[in-house]
Amino acid sequence: MKKRKLGRGVSVIGAGMTKFGMFKNKDSKDLFAEAFNETIASVDKGFDPNDIEALYLGNFSNDFFVHQAHWAPIISDLIGLAPKPATRTEGACASSALAFREGVFAIASGFYDIVLVGGVEEMSKTSTEGVAEGLALATVPYEGKVGFTFPGVFGVIATAYFAKYGACHRDLMNITIKSHNNAPFNPKAQIPFTVKQMMDAKIERIKSKGRPVPQWQNEIDFLSDPSANPPVAWPMHLYDCCPISDGASCMILAAEDIAKNFTDKPLNVIGIGQGSGRGFHAAESLTSFEATKNAAKEAYGMSGLKPEDIQFSEVHDCFSIAELIHTEDLGFFKPGEGYKAVRDGVTRLDGPMPINTSGGLKSKGHPVGATGTSQLVEVWKQLRNEAGERQVKKKDLRIGAAHNLGGTGGTCTFTILERR
Amino acid sequence: MKKRKLGRGVSVIGAGMTKFGMFKNKDSKDLFAEAFNETIASVDKGFDPNDIEALYLGNFSNDFFVHQAHWAPIISDLIGLAPKPATRTEGACASSALAFREGVFAIASGFYDIVLVGGVEEMSKTSTEGVAEGLALATVPYEGKVGFTFPGVFGVIATAYFAKYGACHRDLMNITIKSHNNAPFNPKAQIPFTVKQMMDAKIERIKSKGRPVPQWQNEIDFLSDPSANPPVAWPMHLYDCCPISDGASCMILAAEDIAKNFTDKPLNVIGIGQGSGRGFHAAESLTSFEATKNAAKEAYGMSGLKPEDIQFSEVHDCFSIAELIHTEDLGFFKPGEGYKAVRDGVTRLDGPMPINTSGGLKSKGHPVGATGTSQLVEVWKQLRNEAGERQVKKKDLRIGAAHNLGGTGGTCTFTILERR
Repeated sequence: MKKRKLGRGVSVIGAGMTKFGMFKNKDSKDLFAEAFNETIASVDKGFDPNDIEALYLGNFSNDFFVHQAHWAPIISDLIGLAPKPATRTEGACASSALAFREGVFAIASGFYDIVLVGGVEEMSKTSTEGVAEGLALATVPYEGKVGFTFPGVFGVIATAYFAKYGACHRDLMNITIKSHNNAPFNPKAQIPFTVKQMMDAKIERIKSKGRPVPQWQNEIDFLSDPSANPPVAWPMHLYDCCPISDGASCMILAAEDIAKNFTDKPLNVIGIGQGSGRGFHAAESLTSFEATKNAAKEAYGMSGLKPEDIQFSEVHDCFSIAELIHTEDLGFFKPGEGYKAVRDGVTRLDGPMPINTSGGLKSKGHPVGATGTSQLVEVWKQLRNEAGERQVKKKDLRIGAAHNLGGTGGTCTFTILERR
Repeated sequence: MKKRKLGRGVSVIGAGMTKFGMFKNKDSKDLFAEAFNETIASVDKGFDPNDIEALYLGNFSNDFFVHQAHWAPIISDLIGLAPKPATRTEGACASSALAFREGVFAIASGFYDIVLVGGVEEMSKTSTEGVAEGLALATVPYEGKVGFTFPGVFGVIATAYFAKYGACHRDLMNITIKSHNNAPFNPKAQIPFTVKQMMDAKIERIKSKGRPVPQWQNEIDFLSDPSANPPVAWPMHLYDCCPISDGASCMILAAEDIAKNFTDKPLNVIGIGQGSGRGFHAAESLTSFEATKNAAKEAYGMSGLKPEDIQFSEVHDCFSIAELIHTEDLGFFKPGEGYKAVRDGVTRLDGPMPINTSGGLKSKGHPVGATGTSQLVEVWKQLRNEAGERQVKKKDLRIGAAHNLGGTGGTCTFTILERR
């Protein structure tokens, strides 16, 4: 693969997002306005929204979820950008990571200096069955159209991983517990509770109803009990799956040469990898995503970095098994070693390679079109030392990354940001 | 507005498209493969598809039309591109013009050297009512959700134009007749007949059934008779509206510095304008599209050209009135003068400013996601002197353009290509 480079450097100068959750009284416009206002306010030296020259908006399928497509100009109108250009990108759950990447290209090309990128999705107004049907639009035709749902696909992947490497469902539980341990420290998280807190709350509810109290000694007992953690598509249980969410996120990108006009702490975009995948009907392996590997190759190649140079990363955990496999595909761990790293605490907030300090999709939520840029908002917070109680405490924290997955591996991105 | 420029020049080195039509036995993959194969074959000095580094694919809402989203990786798989990046852009009926523009940025940024751009849409498997519902997803919420359909919106626009400038439905008929006069010369056209031919065929059918033969002396008589040209949403009659279509189109873009390796006749991308619009609930005028005006400003600004420098143009004529207003917004004619220019033959194939030599959306067809790049395929054919019987016969034909509209003005692009 050729070494990728940009003709002009690009920086992030602002970032913001809504709380993720299920908001019956907020539509996509309300959500984006909230994220946008926080983003504008985040620019250290102040920012005039009139300086935005174009918008890139990730959205998976509000077409399906709320029967409205063509969202880029709607959002452009909302934020007072019209008649300037507004473009929607769609790569399933990686839609806004694509928006980010196109914003980078638009500036690196020399055409624009300042671009807004972001994403939005409005899922909770659809029934649970409707969400499953809508998400299945993102699978390849050989999956969704023959009855495979997302939990089904990832259940198959987990089974293959277990068979190949000797892991078991308990190894996935460790991922869930780890991610939820970060969630109470993230005010934007949809489920800001640890598994322990949810277990204790459940015990209280059972007690209050006068029913027999389960003998759960710890989180593993709790997650092993089908009455608390029922199977969805074996071995994917409820706590292996991210929730249904609404939300929006965005970032302001600027040419590196003008970024210092807006902040003394810009982040530089040093890696923007992307890959496509063929679906598992055509994959050589069920325990690896070719799109992630290509994205990693592009991003590492551009940055000149190796996996060990990444100091922390958000990694797309729509299902627990997804985080596990992606951390191996990204080179953080060797194939078949990822689950041992989780067991040994390597990926904890205070471990040597923190993964999903935000709580991940599992706890933070997953409004699909908004997820890509929301992951980068977390990297922004961490690298600027603004992550509060979930701040990664490494000395000289300088390089963070985000991995975003669309569909069942159809689209993957890997983005590396650096504080200089 | 700042003068827009690209840090690196971009050229078109290949182009192709399917015939447009209603194809019950071809799906989006079949259609794209057909356009792709023609595109590869069009590269003068030969082309290895493995040299493609990324794909940008425009698609409006196959989500709705055939219940499948996330098309970029599906097409990437189809053409053997996986695991390289594949990104879908959506801007309603301007979706593939956006793909073209992102392809330009990706190369101009220095990241890629060779990129495939294109579009596809599969509409005819949906009922006519379904198509109307699907297309209404592209209007702004203040239009589609309160019952406005596309013909309804453009009917209102036409009424406003008539009232303001003293035009009438006959002026729109001139546009239809002009576009259909070019269609028999375009082998890719869905309706490759002149209005006269369709009138004569209808007379023959009536005769053969032994019914009374209408006294139509010419096309205007025919189009004025509601039995032949019934109203859809007054004053939009059947022959003011483009058909429902399936189809695909694509182009290969390469960095200008390597284009000569592939062809001695590359086209250079000298203008890539885009704009967004707020819908007519918020427009200052019903007889102008702010998104088109912004797109024109960007493209003319980048190219250093004026409207009079454009030697011919494809102009988005989803409805006859759309072509008329856009030719004014693009500066080809003064506001309120466009209909007179059509009447005087200015926009005919042999006129001083040929518009829609391909037959336009009205005759060529309008598979919405494929339209943007298909317009540019026409510009490619004309500028390379490969348009056959519909070739523009100007001396030193060097500069052509294409204008693409999405929704009811939400997204517009204006792209200028040059043969050097």
